Amino acid sequence: MGNSLEIVAIGGMGEIRAGDDLAGQIIDACQAEHPLVDHDVLVVSQKVVSKAEDRQVKVDPDDPLSHKPLVVSEAKRVLRRRGELIITETQHGFVCANSGIDRSNVASDVACLLPVDPDRSARRIRDAIRHRLGVDVAIIVADTFGRPWRRGVTDIALGCAGILPILDLRGTPDATGRVLHVTEVCIVDELAGAAELVRGKSTGHAVALIRGVDPEWFGPGSVVEDIVRDPADDLFR
Amino acid sequence: MGNSLEIVAIGGMGEIRAGDDLAGQIIDACQAEHPLVDHDVLVVSQKVVSKAEDRQVKVDPDDPLSHKPLVVSEAKRVLRRRGELIITETQHGFVCANSGIDRSNVASDVACLLPVDPDRSARRIRDAIRHRLGVDVAIIVADTFGRPWRRGVTDIALGCAGILPILDLRGTPDATGRVLHVTEVCIVDELAGAAELVRGKSTGHAVALIRGVDPEWFGPGSVVEDIVRDPADDLFR
Repeated sequence: MGNSLEIVAIGGMGEIRAGDDLAGQIIDACQAEHPLVDHDVLVVSQKVVSKAEDRQVKVDPDDPLSHKPLVVSEAKRVLRRRGELIITETQHGFVCANSGIDRSNVASDVACLLPVDPDRSARRIRDAIRHRLGVDVAIIVADTFGRPWRRGVTDIALGCAGILPILDLRGTPDATGRVLHVTEVCIVDELAGAAELVRGKSTGHAVALIRGVDPEWFGPGSVVEDIVRDPADDLFR
Repeated sequence: MGNSLEIVAIGGMGEIRAGDDLAGQIIDACQAEHPLVDHDVLVVSQKVVSKAEDRQVKVDPDDPLSHKPLVVSEAKRVLRRRGELIITETQHGFVCANSGIDRSNVASDVACLLPVDPDRSARRIRDAIRHRLGVDVAIIVADTFGRPWRRGVTDIALGCAGILPILDLRGTPDATGRVLHVTEVCIVDELAGAAELVRGKSTGHAVALIRGVDPEWFGPGSVVEDIVRDPADDLFR
């Protein structure tokens, strides 16, 4: 089990607007091409979740910095500033640029905020799929973050439902029989990044389906509770 | 193009020892089950690269901390310490725990160091495959790193050959026609993490094959030169 995966971008979804039935649109798009089965994982772009949840704020379309006051108001703390770059800790505890606010893939006069509770957003989509199709899938809400010591961005999980955020291999033997001491793999971040490879940035594919994930990885969990590191344990903030 | 990926763990490789023909073993294992074709990506565990390159050092098997002096001698700088945890900047510029040295999946009396030049390690494997099979693949040498603000580890790229480390989408339009300003996607890190999902930690699969990667992503590049952030640009070191 778990020795191969298939990842496919889900096409055919229209533009998502505030109040839209996002889960319904995801279901329709999946069923048209790749009917969902138990233990599928769907990775959903934060952008469409935020749009459906009406997390958009009007800004001056002619001022590329008009969303910057929102960056501060959405933050729990501003950690670093350099020029136009602001690194913040969000209300959820995420450390990222601009409190996760951005203006790509939205109308020019709006800025898009992160979902209030991305784990809840994921649960809603998962519950809707189970209710409508009778199928148990996992949902990951993904966004694109930078890293302090490596150039380039990667997609990570903002929220999840139905999948263990961290696979705890502590106490299991490695290939030589030695017990692994510290190996807690953040599988939801690896799944989010894998999905980005097929979703791309400009092709408008908001959802990717990952099939072949080990059934033992499915279970309860929360990105905010299980992955966000307590500032007290942080060596770099 | 680029809208689906298949990821499969490559089995059948024996234990790798110092001086072994790692590329030859990878070729034999792949050809037995998934004959390589142009634009395949192979993600290879740092551990087998380090073993083949004899980057192992004897340590006291009865002392779980006997490799700690190596952590300091392999580092360019020690950045943080807390208890037994040492975060260093390696000679390559990677910021990670214990200078990337670990003792899992090796004999109990050795500690495994990172390859001296992981990009070169990747190039050697790529060149050997091209020479023996006439096939152009990309190679990523992957290792498992922690992150400062998120719990759990993920696999990232230490070195690469034949693939662009960063996909530069700056200046290309998003789905609304707006020009994306800052979107340089670190695809080699996302590919390394995706491969980890099938390789696992304890199953002894040192290599994963990723098929379906966009041919436009293949080209020259170096993890150390293109991904490692210059300390002068660093806000958190």
